[in-house]
Amino acid sequence: MIESLSLVDQYCHGVLRTELGLGTFEAQLGGRVGPAAPGTTFFDTQTGFAVRRWCPPLLGLEAHCPPAHYLARRRELGVLESGRRLLRSTGVTTYLVDTGLPGELTGPGEIAAAGAADAREIVRLEPLAERVADASCGVADLLSRLAESVHDAAATAVAFTSVAGVRHGPALAPEPPAHAEVRAAAGHWLTVRGPGGPLDDPVLLRHLLWLALGSGLPLQLHTGARDARAPAGGADPALVTAFASATAGLGTDLVLLGAYPYHRHAAHLTSVFPHVYADLGPALAHTGARAAAVLAEILELAPFGKLLFSSGARALPELHVVGARVFREALVRVLGGWVADGAWSLTDARRVAEMIAAGNARRLYGLSDGRGQP
Amino acid sequence: MIESLSLVDQYCHGVLRTELGLGTFEAQLGGRVGPAAPGTTFFDTQTGFAVRRWCPPLLGLEAHCPPAHYLARRRELGVLESGRRLLRSTGVTTYLVDTGLPGELTGPGEIAAAGAADAREIVRLEPLAERVADASCGVADLLSRLAESVHDAAATAVAFTSVAGVRHGPALAPEPPAHAEVRAAAGHWLTVRGPGGPLDDPVLLRHLLWLALGSGLPLQLHTGARDARAPAGGADPALVTAFASATAGLGTDLVLLGAYPYHRHAAHLTSVFPHVYADLGPALAHTGARAAAVLAEILELAPFGKLLFSSGARALPELHVVGARVFREALVRVLGGWVADGAWSLTDARRVAEMIAAGNARRLYGLSDGRGQP
Amino acid sequence: MIESLSLVDQYCHGVLRTELGLGTFEAQLGGRVGPAAPGTTFFDTQTGFAVRRWCPPLLGLEAHCPPAHYLARRRELGVLESGRRLLRSTGVTTYLVDTGLPGELTGPGEIAAAGAADAREIVRLEPLAERVADASCGVADLLSRLAESVHDAAATAVAFTSVAGVRHGPALAPEPPAHAEVRAAAGHWLTVRGPGGPLDDPVLLRHLLWLALGSGLPLQLHTGARDARAPAGGADPALVTAFASATAGLGTDLVLLGAYPYHRHAAHLTSVFPHVYADLGPALAHTGARAAAVLAEILELAPFGKLLFSSGARALPELHVVGARVFREALVRVLGGWVADGAWSLTDARRVAEMIAAGNARRLYGLSDGRGQP
Repeated sequence: MIESLSLVDQYCHGVLRTELGLGTFEAQLGGRVGPAAPGTTFFDTQTGFAVRRWCPPLLGLEAHCPPAHYLARRRELGVLESGRRLLRSTGVTTYLVDTGLPGELTGPGEIAAAGAADAREIVRLEPLAERVADASCGVADLLSRLAESVHDAAATAVAFTSVAGVRHGPALAPEPPAHAEVRAAAGHWLTVRGPGGPLDDPVLLRHLLWLALGSGLPLQLHTGARDARAPAGGADPALVTAFASATAGLGTDLVLLGAYPYHRHAAHLTSVFPHVYADLGPALAHTGARAAAVLAEILELAPFGKLLFSSGARALPELHVVGARVFREALVRVLGGWVADGAWSLTDARRVAEMIAAGNARRLYGLSDGRGQP
Repeated sequence: MIESLSLVDQYCHGVLRTELGLGTFEAQLGGRVGPAAPGTTFFDTQTGFAVRRWCPPLLGLEAHCPPAHYLARRRELGVLESGRRLLRSTGVTTYLVDTGLPGELTGPGEIAAAGAADAREIVRLEPLAERVADASCGVADLLSRLAESVHDAAATAVAFTSVAGVRHGPALAPEPPAHAEVRAAAGHWLTVRGPGGPLDDPVLLRHLLWLALGSGLPLQLHTGARDARAPAGGADPALVTAFASATAGLGTDLVLLGAYPYHRHAAHLTSVFPHVYADLGPALAHTGARAAAVLAEILELAPFGKLLFSSGARALPELHVVGARVFREALVRVLGGWVADGAWSLTDARRVAEMIAAGNARRLYGLSDGRGQP
Repeated sequence: MIESLSLVDQYCHGVLRTELGLGTFEAQLGGRVGPAAPGTTFFDTQTGFAVRRWCPPLLGLEAHCPPAHYLARRRELGVLESGRRLLRSTGVTTYLVDTGLPGELTGPGEIAAAGAADAREIVRLEPLAERVADASCGVADLLSRLAESVHDAAATAVAFTSVAGVRHGPALAPEPPAHAEVRAAAGHWLTVRGPGGPLDDPVLLRHLLWLALGSGLPLQLHTGARDARAPAGGADPALVTAFASATAGLGTDLVLLGAYPYHRHAAHLTSVFPHVYADLGPALAHTGARAAAVLAEILELAPFGKLLFSSGARALPELHVVGARVFREALVRVLGGWVADGAWSLTDARRVAEMIAAGNARRLYGLSDGRGQP
């Protein structure tokens, strides 16, 4: 029954439109800019092994075949057809797509078409602010356009997302910055940046978070330790706790993305704060054969209504496949095991599986259930 | 054999004396002041599922029956009779009861009677200080009465407990505060507080911890991340390490309560410091179907003579039941598995089970073994 | 096949040359200076149970026999013969031996002879600096001799190691200290220390780390929480992250030793930084029956080319045995389980097993494969 469950992928990116060689494909597996260490390859990771387990059969090859065979077959079918076959195998009926990454990735419309599914947009705050700054003349103009852009984006997006939590931990200071502080930071930023210059001012990042909170849309915060560029301590769960405390009772929900290896802390926060939810994405998709064990840890303290499936995939449709397959497998193993032990009833297990796979996301983001019902 | 082991519940509270509706019962499951998030319920947690697994059969119903059926049956039997049936199923022969919580909970005598067991008192330091302050005139009087009250309490109590570790992390500064500091803090507190005003001054909290250390009774410290009111970083194991270092060699033992998700750190501290013990309570009782996995993690570094069973239960006798059942199940599964693998001998497994269930607590708190032997 | 895998033990110490009584043996099990808590024994730990499981049969006794029987038999055979039997059972073909511990432990040559294996030296930086200081006259002399000694050691050693990471967290400030700072610190140290006085100045420790980095040999950093003398926060993975950032791209590799309970953080760092490797030693050897579970956690994010077996053993050859046995068992269980589930192919599992057991260490340290091939 879990095998046929439809999924809402509540956080992912688009895929590349170009054919990929072995090296380019491998780099995307690691999710890194740089190469693997001499004598090693990112294929020798749980993600690499999971891709080799699940994807070759979808393109007509043996599971675990050598990467070079797989990529040859992928090129033979073409990037469009292989992407279509891969995405349509996932059972995802709605993709929520973060469109804010640089690079040539497909948008929500293309994902929806390739995957024969619905897709909605998640707006990433930092690039939105950078586009606004490129078009602004002066501080007052920048700040009013920022507010307007966040407001406009909220009309069509399902959520906002920010990586400020990881890259600028102290930006998660609990309170919104004072107006004078924001004006000063905006003036400084406009002075020092060139066109396209990145937003890395902690005060402006906090200002953006609070603008987004004002929209009422769920706010997805990147946490955890995945990002090498995160300053030391940026993944500290104590920072997230302080921000969760400051935003309690405002009526806007927070979704913690990527908390691993602090996923138990994230789960605990979902039990303490009514407005805090936790994403399962990378914690499962990147741990492959270990996903069931990690899922089980998250299920220790989290209320079952507070957890959300995602793939966290980007660039390779193989990662969308791995996210979905690994999640289903983990759910069957963990919940099935508890039913077999008598710890959970079968009815409860089915109900909880549906909640985590799609129901919680539908409720949180106000999505219909595919039969026209919200 | 583990199924019939008698238990010392080394940290719990009393139960409510009134009949409970579905909403009140659910709120106690979450251990929270506020409600669950919209569209969710605290019944959909490991604790909720564990209650539904273990308790209905004790009142003559099917396991996993709907919560409303269970509560109807509970009211039909009455709060006294259902409490008696529940508590007597636990196999606990001695309850150590923290009597310092506000609210109408039964005391050690009532728990002993309902559970057909022994019960002893754990004195919580903060409310003791607040009662003393209500009756004191001036700083000198407050400080001498505090010392006297701690001394008097030590005559009958088996242990002291404090939540200062969680709510005021920096209060765990290693050294005792200087006398002048304590006098100043006491003066300030008496000035600003009204009758019943809570103790939240870090200097006075440290002073209280050191008064309790002077008594020689074991001191139970609330650690870990369970409490939403904990300041950011309050659960940091580094704070506990510093306090353990400062108190080594004094002759007073420390018991770390509720360290989850830092339970491996707590276990490690028990291996480093002869005077540090770790409680298993909430780490097992709140994780339900996952308790065996969490217990196994704690058993990685902790010497087996340093671990203590508890339920950590409060308000609902169902939570005393869950604590005991989940612990027994976890012990059977973990130790039984190691015996089956040949990693442990059966004799050792039985001996360790008895130590953790009751023997370590009897030795630490100077309890008799129920046959009149200390 | 894993049962017969040859191992490179990439971090261990020598063994004691004297006969041991029950008390001395027990103290070494705990790895502690002090005694166990009253009423407890270090035999009642995972390490103690693992010794009793694996070692008695190697000396002709039943597994799990009482410690006193085992020690009697050990004395009967003599420390040399029992050491030989124990070490030769491990399947280790190359020992990398940290020779910098005080106390009468055998050196690489003796280990090699007793174990019928190769042995190479790891040079510990702190005692090297202390020996240099004993022989130096003045700051300039000390600093030039230090540089010379590190350079000379690099000619024969396979790696350097330092405990500065644990004992002096802030010493891991990312950048090398300025020359004037180093001169001042050296002057102060020479003034206050007596002969043999320990190196605990954070500036000099950082200077030593950067001298070692300049040699190009892999640098092994003690991390994690094993050491009671570590200052609070010394095990914080954020400190290691900052040092890894600062040393990226220099061409020198770092090996994180003993990161447990932060082993998932260490594994993550190996995935982010091409020059960071992680040791498995104490995380497995000290957790005994739980080693498979801990190994599986490390295998979540770490690229398989970045993990290195070790025993971390010191003083007792029993600990070398436990390290090797527990590792093999864990590898069979974890990788074998994934093959049985279809998550990994058998070919991949064999290849990864060989990499972690020996291949990665051979590549990193430039060791031959025992058939004369580098």
